[in-house]
Amino acid sequence: MAGTDSLQADKALLETALAQQDRIALDALLGKRRSADVAELLEAFVDEDDEATALALLDALPLDRGGNVFSYLCDENQQRLAAGMADQPLVMLLEEMGSDERADFFNLVGEDRREALLRRMARLEREEVLHLASYEEGTAGALMTADYVAIPVGLSVSQALMRVRQTAPDAETVYQVYILDDGGRLTGTLSLRQLIVARPGAAVAELMIRDVIHTRVDAEQEDVAKLVARYDLLAVPVVDDADRLVGIVTHDDALDVMEAEATEDIHKGMSIGQLETGVSRVPLVKLYRKRIVWLVLLVFGNLFSGAGIAFFEDTIAAQVALVFFLPLLIGSGGNAGAQAATLTVRGMATGDVGVRDWGKLMGRELLVAGALGLTMALAVAPIGVMRGGDAVALVVAISMITIVLFGSLLGMCLPFLLDRLGWDPATASAPLVTTVIDACGVVIYFGIASQLLGLG
Amino acid sequence: MAGTDSLQADKALLETALAQQDRIALDALLGKRRSADVAELLEAFVDEDDEATALALLDALPLDRGGNVFSYLCDENQQRLAAGMADQPLVMLLEEMGSDERADFFNLVGEDRREALLRRMARLEREEVLHLASYEEGTAGALMTADYVAIPVGLSVSQALMRVRQTAPDAETVYQVYILDDGGRLTGTLSLRQLIVARPGAAVAELMIRDVIHTRVDAEQEDVAKLVARYDLLAVPVVDDADRLVGIVTHDDALDVMEAEATEDIHKGMSIGQLETGVSRVPLVKLYRKRIVWLVLLVFGNLFSGAGIAFFEDTIAAQVALVFFLPLLIGSGGNAGAQAATLTVRGMATGDVGVRDWGKLMGRELLVAGALGLTMALAVAPIGVMRGGDAVALVVAISMITIVLFGSLLGMCLPFLLDRLGWDPATASAPLVTTVIDACGVVIYFGIASQLLGLG
Repeated sequence: MAGTDSLQADKALLETALAQQDRIALDALLGKRRSADVAELLEAFVDEDDEATALALLDALPLDRGGNVFSYLCDENQQRLAAGMADQPLVMLLEEMGSDERADFFNLVGEDRREALLRRMARLEREEVLHLASYEEGTAGALMTADYVAIPVGLSVSQALMRVRQTAPDAETVYQVYILDDGGRLTGTLSLRQLIVARPGAAVAELMIRDVIHTRVDAEQEDVAKLVARYDLLAVPVVDDADRLVGIVTHDDALDVMEAEATEDIHKGMSIGQLETGVSRVPLVKLYRKRIVWLVLLVFGNLFSGAGIAFFEDTIAAQVALVFFLPLLIGSGGNAGAQAATLTVRGMATGDVGVRDWGKLMGRELLVAGALGLTMALAVAPIGVMRGGDAVALVVAISMITIVLFGSLLGMCLPFLLDRLGWDPATASAPLVTTVIDACGVVIYFGIASQLLGLG
Repeated sequence: MAGTDSLQADKALLETALAQQDRIALDALLGKRRSADVAELLEAFVDEDDEATALALLDALPLDRGGNVFSYLCDENQQRLAAGMADQPLVMLLEEMGSDERADFFNLVGEDRREALLRRMARLEREEVLHLASYEEGTAGALMTADYVAIPVGLSVSQALMRVRQTAPDAETVYQVYILDDGGRLTGTLSLRQLIVARPGAAVAELMIRDVIHTRVDAEQEDVAKLVARYDLLAVPVVDDADRLVGIVTHDDALDVMEAEATEDIHKGMSIGQLETGVSRVPLVKLYRKRIVWLVLLVFGNLFSGAGIAFFEDTIAAQVALVFFLPLLIGSGGNAGAQAATLTVRGMATGDVGVRDWGKLMGRELLVAGALGLTMALAVAPIGVMRGGDAVALVVAISMITIVLFGSLLGMCLPFLLDRLGWDPATASAPLVTTVIDACGVVIYFGIASQLLGLG
């Protein structure tokens, strides 16, 4: 797990080697590092606005390693470095990258530069870029790579192995071989494991698995990642509308999607918009914009709580002690509701919970929330007695049960409701649930109080 | 992506085939389904407390597929089905499973049953179970499998390929071959891709990559998963204190860990304890226990807000209109703080943010939160004028900026503080942050009000 620890030490050494133009020291320092680690070093320089050093290091790498390192950089830093490079060296670097990473780069580069770069590219790579760039962001098509091993169905095992050997340097994974019919349609698959244990003279057509787990170019990347996880796949083949194989999504890209989607859900759960980069690197204006929209919306949501309080102003004036319990009651309802919403949203995201489970979950939540409300009512009742006497204690206890029950059920239902409306259930964020329950909690609490205490 | 859709239809057909003891129909129905899908069918029966049908289906599968399907079941359902099986068939099933899955099973089974099962097992598997079971849950040791391909360093490429062919049926992955010295220490690695393109007579010792990315048995599973993701590995080898290879963690297990850890962080973010099973399946009593602890703690946290209100009772009585803005102000502070905490916690979990970034993030948060507070103050000021005049509007606006700034900085710092204390930063959950900010917000608001309005 070394690699990041000595980053600071290496940075200084690399800067010295660059300043002295000491190629040997430079090669030694870069040669012992893995591509992911060199990329992290480069990111550190770019983050300090020292693009010149990062470019000099990139230039010092052998071309194939340079392409690999460049692939590991985040989108933003790729574009910053590309801005400082001439067209020809950049094209040479891009041609060393995987077709999926290259397409991602081209999706972000400006129109003019894009044209200039494409003109300099080899025909095959150019067509691949244009092809992959045509798929919508967030789909299997945008995630897939065109660097896979596909063979015609008529080969023998030894012929197939020969093809694998020939393709090995370029393909992202050689461990799953896809078998195509004359029309380029996906008809079967064999793992390299199956190929190497098979008799060399056997026909691929007889050995191959015909029922291939696959996905379509327009499938959502989250679903593709789930498929990889569910069936423990190394890669999942992607077909077009005519069942022709057009690419594969590999396990490492699926892992990245899984991590990005989890981050997105966590951020949504706290009412933060989508951030493409890490929080330490995203521009401040963007961070502001991603946070302010929801915050201001919630301000207006909270006005309903204020309006509720204003409506019961006479009740409050008659018994100011009630205000003591206000934050506690609406806070508890909000917390229980946010828990229920979080459990439901995450359950839906991992596929554990579906819409058809709604009735069952509702029954379960009713029981659990009832028990939660009762426990919390018992916890606050003594404080009610202390501060306002038996009558206030009763009001607080009944309000607690009602608000926790109401909040929990609302928190559980909201994600289903949003899903039905075609929205992302993760939008049922904790702050939204809390704000809605706050406003309802005010009305429930003072409503019960004014009834039982004969106020207002 | 088919598979789950026809689940209900298949359930009915399977029940009919079982009732009629129609082996041919049964084989046809089960044969066309993948193991992950058959496992889902079995889970559906067990969830409806119909263990008998699930066991009958498991029994109808060929033994090797049965072991595979059993591996896909969740821990709880594995134990429920095992309870209904005799020792000998259960042992035969367990011997078909991967060594890591088998060890997980033995970690959960009761002491008596464990002894009985182990006695019936082959010596090799028995020792493996005892060995793997000795590692602490949540470490690389508990996650790893012993079914890997390792070869001595002295072989040629063709000899190495022969070994791979022999090991192919048992190993979890044959695509990465680990090379050991005489003492069983990990000295190098070669991918199957490298082996098949190499000259058959070449020496493994010359070709192999000597600097192997590896981890130790006691490494945390989250760090192991990050290693797999960072370097796009198929598997990461695990060594003991003497650098001897003892197992590998494969990419699919890393993906599962990543998903489970994300769920855990999301639940912690909403003050829910750790759930081993999905929310739709966890027992109600456990769900209650996992939620009540934090809810009751937060009740007492909220009492501080109540105490703050009680302290300013005279201020409130003198100007009841102030209460109108109370939920809005403390709610906004809580929301902004929860956003900041979430961004920091997730950044720390994905490795984007480290403790050394604290100063930089603090400066960034100061700027962003200042802008957020100012915007929100401008949004509420007109309402302040409407409901209480210019003086109240001024109080509300100043309070808003102060509370949002304070809440955001606290939300950002809390995860770092917890990390320093050796706690999981994810414990800095939104409800905790919100509750703390609520109490402080009350004091800030009424403090400013009593000063500026000359009340209290």
